[in-house]
Amino acid sequence: MLNGVPANIGPDLLKVLSEMGHGDELVIADGNFPSAALAQRLVRADGVGVPEMLESVLKLVPLDTYVESPLVLMATVEGDPEPPIWSVYQDIADRSQDESPVMSHIDRQEFYERAKRAYAVLATGEREVYANIIVKKGVVRSV
Amino acid sequence: MLNGVPANIGPDLLKVLSEMGHGDELVIADGNFPSAALAQRLVRADGVGVPEMLESVLKLVPLDTYVESPLVLMATVEGDPEPPIWSVYQDIADRSQDESPVMSHIDRQEFYERAKRAYAVLATGEREVYANIIVKKGVVRSV
Amino acid sequence: MLNGVPANIGPDLLKVLSEMGHGDELVIADGNFPSAALAQRLVRADGVGVPEMLESVLKLVPLDTYVESPLVLMATVEGDPEPPIWSVYQDIADRSQDESPVMSHIDRQEFYERAKRAYAVLATGEREVYANIIVKKGVVRSV
Amino acid sequence: MLNGVPANIGPDLLKVLSEMGHGDELVIADGNFPSAALAQRLVRADGVGVPEMLESVLKLVPLDTYVESPLVLMATVEGDPEPPIWSVYQDIADRSQDESPVMSHIDRQEFYERAKRAYAVLATGEREVYANIIVKKGVVRSV
Amino acid sequence: MLNGVPANIGPDLLKVLSEMGHGDELVIADGNFPSAALAQRLVRADGVGVPEMLESVLKLVPLDTYVESPLVLMATVEGDPEPPIWSVYQDIADRSQDESPVMSHIDRQEFYERAKRAYAVLATGEREVYANIIVKKGVVRSV
Amino acid sequence: MLNGVPANIGPDLLKVLSEMGHGDELVIADGNFPSAALAQRLVRADGVGVPEMLESVLKLVPLDTYVESPLVLMATVEGDPEPPIWSVYQDIADRSQDESPVMSHIDRQEFYERAKRAYAVLATGEREVYANIIVKKGVVRSV
Amino acid sequence: MLNGVPANIGPDLLKVLSEMGHGDELVIADGNFPSAALAQRLVRADGVGVPEMLESVLKLVPLDTYVESPLVLMATVEGDPEPPIWSVYQDIADRSQDESPVMSHIDRQEFYERAKRAYAVLATGEREVYANIIVKKGVVRSV
Amino acid sequence: MLNGVPANIGPDLLKVLSEMGHGDELVIADGNFPSAALAQRLVRADGVGVPEMLESVLKLVPLDTYVESPLVLMATVEGDPEPPIWSVYQDIADRSQDESPVMSHIDRQEFYERAKRAYAVLATGEREVYANIIVKKGVVRSV
Amino acid sequence: MLNGVPANIGPDLLKVLSEMGHGDELVIADGNFPSAALAQRLVRADGVGVPEMLESVLKLVPLDTYVESPLVLMATVEGDPEPPIWSVYQDIADRSQDESPVMSHIDRQEFYERAKRAYAVLATGEREVYANIIVKKGVVRSV
Amino acid sequence: MLNGVPANIGPDLLKVLSEMGHGDELVIADGNFPSAALAQRLVRADGVGVPEMLESVLKLVPLDTYVESPLVLMATVEGDPEPPIWSVYQDIADRSQDESPVMSHIDRQEFYERAKRAYAVLATGEREVYANIIVKKGVVRSV
Repeated sequence: MLNGVPANIGPDLLKVLSEMGHGDELVIADGNFPSAALAQRLVRADGVGVPEMLESVLKLVPLDTYVESPLVLMATVEGDPEPPIWSVYQDIADRSQDESPVMSHIDRQEFYERAKRAYAVLATGEREVYANIIVKKGVVRSV
Repeated sequence: MLNGVPANIGPDLLKVLSEMGHGDELVIADGNFPSAALAQRLVRADGVGVPEMLESVLKLVPLDTYVESPLVLMATVEGDPEPPIWSVYQDIADRSQDESPVMSHIDRQEFYERAKRAYAVLATGEREVYANIIVKKGVVRSV
Repeated sequence: MLNGVPANIGPDLLKVLSEMGHGDELVIADGNFPSAALAQRLVRADGVGVPEMLESVLKLVPLDTYVESPLVLMATVEGDPEPPIWSVYQDIADRSQDESPVMSHIDRQEFYERAKRAYAVLATGEREVYANIIVKKGVVRSV
Repeated sequence: MLNGVPANIGPDLLKVLSEMGHGDELVIADGNFPSAALAQRLVRADGVGVPEMLESVLKLVPLDTYVESPLVLMATVEGDPEPPIWSVYQDIADRSQDESPVMSHIDRQEFYERAKRAYAVLATGEREVYANIIVKKGVVRSV
Repeated sequence: MLNGVPANIGPDLLKVLSEMGHGDELVIADGNFPSAALAQRLVRADGVGVPEMLESVLKLVPLDTYVESPLVLMATVEGDPEPPIWSVYQDIADRSQDESPVMSHIDRQEFYERAKRAYAVLATGEREVYANIIVKKGVVRSV
Repeated sequence: MLNGVPANIGPDLLKVLSEMGHGDELVIADGNFPSAALAQRLVRADGVGVPEMLESVLKLVPLDTYVESPLVLMATVEGDPEPPIWSVYQDIADRSQDESPVMSHIDRQEFYERAKRAYAVLATGEREVYANIIVKKGVVRSV
Repeated sequence: MLNGVPANIGPDLLKVLSEMGHGDELVIADGNFPSAALAQRLVRADGVGVPEMLESVLKLVPLDTYVESPLVLMATVEGDPEPPIWSVYQDIADRSQDESPVMSHIDRQEFYERAKRAYAVLATGEREVYANIIVKKGVVRSV
Repeated sequence: MLNGVPANIGPDLLKVLSEMGHGDELVIADGNFPSAALAQRLVRADGVGVPEMLESVLKLVPLDTYVESPLVLMATVEGDPEPPIWSVYQDIADRSQDESPVMSHIDRQEFYERAKRAYAVLATGEREVYANIIVKKGVVRSV
Repeated sequence: MLNGVPANIGPDLLKVLSEMGHGDELVIADGNFPSAALAQRLVRADGVGVPEMLESVLKLVPLDTYVESPLVLMATVEGDPEPPIWSVYQDIADRSQDESPVMSHIDRQEFYERAKRAYAVLATGEREVYANIIVKKGVVRSV
Repeated sequence: MLNGVPANIGPDLLKVLSEMGHGDELVIADGNFPSAALAQRLVRADGVGVPEMLESVLKLVPLDTYVESPLVLMATVEGDPEPPIWSVYQDIADRSQDESPVMSHIDRQEFYERAKRAYAVLATGEREVYANIIVKKGVVRSV
C-alpha cells in the first residue's frame, strides 16, 4: 500500500497502469469474462467488483480526450434492458472528470477482439452481467 | 469462477490451497504486513479484507485437529487492547467448524519467522492492525 | 485436496478450470489423443478415464447454455457403430444439469483444429476409442 | 502411452523414474501429504490411489537389494492399529520381486526429512491414512 | 534406466515418445541433418546410429495402421542407388510388427517441411547418407 | 505516468514501493554504490540524483514511526566533514512529515550488510559522496 | 558509471546502444508515449527528459549518414504550432555532428509502426508533447 | 579451450557450429552489422576480426559442396571498388579446402533477409566495411 | 558434427568440455549412477558406454599433470575382484597420453561427494558395474 | 560498437562494467582458468588476450584508490620466475593512471575464493600462464 493510492490497486496493477501510455486500453472484466484466454497481460482482482476497481483506476488514470468515447461497454443483445450497472459506471466516470465522458457500446465479438489488443485485462469477481468495460488512457498532466 | 467455490478465491489461490497438505500453513496478511519480503509463495488479494478471505478459505480448507491451536495471531504488545477483529475471526472459525478452534498468539518476531516457513502468504488489503492470521491445514475428509 | 472438490481434480486442473470464462473450451482427451502436440495449456491425468474426469469437471463447471450444444464429440467414420462410452457421457451430463444437454459431433480434423484453439486439454489415460469430448464453459451463477 | 508401460505412468513420471539411479528414492504420497511443500521434484497423480501407482512403479523400477529394507512406511503412533493398506503394499511388492522385500517404518518427522532428500515425490489422491511409502531404486539389470 | 526399456532410450526421449499421440511423428535424423534448425522439440543421441534407435523406438511405439505408410524416407536423387541402410530399416520394422510396414519416400524439401511439423526430432550420430526416417505413431493397445 | 504520482517514480519502482510492508527497507544509492552486487531487488534511476528520488519516495511511502530512526546514512570516516547533501535530506524529510525524523549513521560495512537484507536498492546516478540513504517504511494510513 | 560515459546512460541502455548496428533505430519517447505496448526492447529513464537523453545518446551513437534524415519526429496535426522542444533537438544534434543533420516528420500512426520495428524504445519522463524522436544509428568509426 | 580446437572458438560458438547440419548457414558479421536485431541465435566475438574467425570456423566446418557458392558476401554498391578483405577471405577459404570455393555476392537487403533465416550470427569487432560473410555448412566426413 | 571432433561428443558436451578449466572435473557415469540427483550440470549419452566416451573425451581434454592421479575410480568393496573395465580405461588413458596416468580409487560415499562438486556429470548407458570414472582437466597447450 | 568505447568491450561486458560499483572486482582470466565453474557472472572473450582486455577495461574503469593494491595477481609457486606478462600489466596500468598502481599477489587457492566473490569473471583466450588478474573498481569521477 502507498499514501494516496487506493488500497485495491495492488503492486502489479499499479505497474501496469503506470506502464500504459496515451491510447493504451485496459479492460476491467467481470467474473465470467474469458480474461485469461484473451489477455496480453492479466492482473487479477477476484474478490472485488468492477465499480470499485473502475473508481480506483480513474483516480490514477486520465481518460483519453482525443477520442469521442474513452469508455466502451459490451452491447446487450437487442431487446435486453440496459444493465443497471452501466449507470453506476457513468456516475463514477462523471465524478472523476471535469466533463462527463461518453460511453459507447460495441458487440460481443468486437469487444473480444479489442480485449486481445488491449494492453491488459483486469479480471474482477464481478457477478453482474454485461459488466465489462474498456478504459482508454489519456495524457497525464498532473503528476 | 467455479460452482461452489467462493468468488474471492481466484485461480492462483485455489491452486495453492489445493497443493497444501496436512500441517502446511497459510498466512492471511493485512495490507501493512511485509508479505512480499517474507513469502515463499505469494498470492495477492489487495482489494479484500482478512475476514472475507478467512471465511472463504475455511470453506475449502479443514483446520488441523492434531494441534492445540490451528489458528495463530500476532500477539499485541503488553497493555494494548485486544483488536476487535479477533472476535470476528473467532466467530468465522466457529461457524466453519463443528468444534470451536482455539486461537493462540505468538509475538511479532516469531510470527515473521513462521511466515517465512509457511507454504504461502495471502496478501490482503486489510486496514485493521494486528489483523494477520495463520491457518494450519488439516486432513481433508469430505472431497 | 479441498473440501467439496473431487479428489481427481488436482491443483493445476483446478486453476485452469477457474481461469476459464464463459465460452472457453476444455478438451478431455483419451490416452491416444495427440494432446501434447495440440494443447495451448496441457494438464495430465494419465491414470484416470474420461468418464470420471467428466463427472468431476461438471460438478465445478457449468455448461454454456447460450449454444445449442455445449458438449462436442469426435464423429465416427461412416458405418462405425456409436461408441458405448457416449451414452455414459450423456448420463453423466444429464445427472449434472437441470436440462439434458445436447451432444454434437464434428469430424476428426475439425476436432483437432478446435483442440488447438481450446483453453486447455486434459490428457487422460482413457483406453476407449472415440472417447474425446469438448466441454464449453457457461456462466457461473452459484459461487 | 507406450507399449508395455502401464497407462498410469505418464510422461513426466516416466522421465523421473528413468532419471533415478541406484539408491535414489521416490515417495509415493497420499492425498493429505504435504507433497508440494517438501518435494525437490513433484509429479502429480491426483485421481489415482497409492496401490495402483506402486504396482506400476515396481514393474519399471527394481528395488535396491543392497539395503535391508527398500520400502519404507510412515510409522503409526503407538497404540494405533496397522493400516490395512500396508498388507496390500506387501502383496504388491511380493508379486513384483523374486524375494519378498522387507518394509520398515520410520516416524513422521523422519519421514518428512527423508521426503525432502528424495529424488521426487509422486502426489496421489489416495484417501487412506498412513498410506505414504518410499521406494528405493536398485540396479537395473534387464533393460 | 528402467526394467524393460532399451538402455539407449534416455529419460528425455522416453518422455517425448510417451507424450506423442496417434498420428504424431518422430524424425530419427542422421548426423548431418539440420536437426536443431528444424525441430520443434529436439532430443540428442550423438553417439548412436539410426538403426539402433529405430529398433528401440519400435519396441515402445506402435506404428500408425491408419495410413498407407507409417515410415517415411528421404528420397534419393534420380539415378542414385538405394542406400543399403534402407533394407536394414525394413528388416527392423518387419521384425517389430505383425505385418510388414510399407516405407514411402518423399523428396528432400518435403522431408524438411515435414520435420518442421513433426512432434520431435531425434538427432543421432549416424554417418550413413540418406539415413533419416520418419516414424508415425499409431494407437497404443498393449500398455 | 499516473495522476498524482511523481514522474520520476517509474512502473518498476512503483511496484516495489507498493509491495513493501511495515519495516521493509529501501536503499537509495548513489552512482558509485555497488548496487547490483548487493541488491535483492534492483531498480535503476541512472539519470537522477538521490534528493529528487528521496523527495518522490517520501510522498508515497510513510516512514516507520516505531523505530528511533527511519532514515539511515553511511557514516563518514572520522575527521571528514559532514557531507552537505545530508542537510538536504533532512530538509526533504522534514517537509514530508509532521514530525522531523531522526537520521542515524552506521559505518560502511554495516551499511553494506543492511543493503543486502533490504527489500530493494534504487540505484541513482548521484555524483555526491556519502549520499546513500536507507528509508524504512512505516504503516500506511491514508490510502 | 564509467569513465567518459554520461551518467544518465545506465547499464541496460549502454548494452542496447552497443548492440545496435548500422541502420538500427532507437526511439527516445516522452512520458505519455505507449512505450511498453510497442517496444521490442524497453529501457526506462522515468526521471529524465528527452533532451538530456538525446544529448548523451549522440555522444556514443553516430548518426546514419546514408539516409537523408537520421532523426525523425512525430508530425503535429495541421494547424498546430511547431513544438519548441524541436529546436532544442536540432541544437543538440548540430553540436554533436560535423554537419547539421536533417530532422524529418512522420505522422502519428506511421511513427507507431516504426516504433514497433525499432531495435529499442527508451521511455523517458518527458512532460512536453510531440517530444518523441527516432535516432537511426550510423557506422561507428572512432572506437 | 580444447585440444585441437582454435582458441578463439569459445564454448557457445562451438556448440552452435556443432548443432548446425548440412545446409545451415552462419553469418560472420562485422562490427557495424545489425547482428542483435537480425539473429535467431547470436554469438559475440567483439575483440576479434572476421578473417581470424573465418579461418578458425573453416577448420571445424566443411563447406557445402552441393551448392555453387558456399560463401556469400554483401555486394558493394555499383562503382565501389572491391573491398581488399575479400581476397583475404578467398585465400583463407582456398587454404582450407581441396578445391577453391566460389564466393558469390548478394545485395544488402537480400543479405539481411538471409541473415534472419541463418542458423546463427557471429558478431565480430571487425572494422572493415563490406566484411560480412555467410558460411554454408556441408556434410561432415572426417569426425 | 564437426571436422576432427569425435561424433559421440554432441553440442552440449562439447560446450561443457570447452567451458571447463584447469582442475575442473567431469564424471563419466554408468547407467545406474544417480547422475541426475548429484550433477551440477548434466549431459546425457544414454546409448553409449563409458569406454567410448572416455576415449573421445581424452582426445579433446588434456589430463591434469599437477596432481598425482587425474583419473579417479569408485573403489570396490573389500574382497570384490577388480572390474575388468578398469584395465580398458588404463589402456585408453595410456594411448591418449605421453606418460601413463595413475588411476586412483576412492570409496562410494567420497565418490558421490566429489560428483556433487564436479563441473559436470556425463550420464552414459554403460551396463558394467564400478564403471564410473572422474576425469580432471589439465592445461590445454595445443589449441 | 560505440564512439569512444574500445571495440573489444562488447555489449555484455559494457553492461557488467557499468553495473559495478566502488569496491566491486572483475577477474580477467586466462584461457585455462576455471572461469565458468567459479564466476557469479561470466563474460567471454575467447579470441582475445588478457593485456588487450586489461588495457580496454582500464580506459573505462577507474582503479580503487582506497586500497593499497587495486590489481591482484595469482602468486607463482616458490622458485618459479616472475611471468613476463606481469610487467606488461604494470606498463598498461601505469599508462592508464596518474600514479603507478601497486600490484599484489595472492596464492592460487585464495585467488579462487576471491574469484567466487568477484562481481564478474571475464574469460579470455590468453595462452600465457599465471596471467589472471583482478581489477578492483574505484570511484568514477569523470563521466
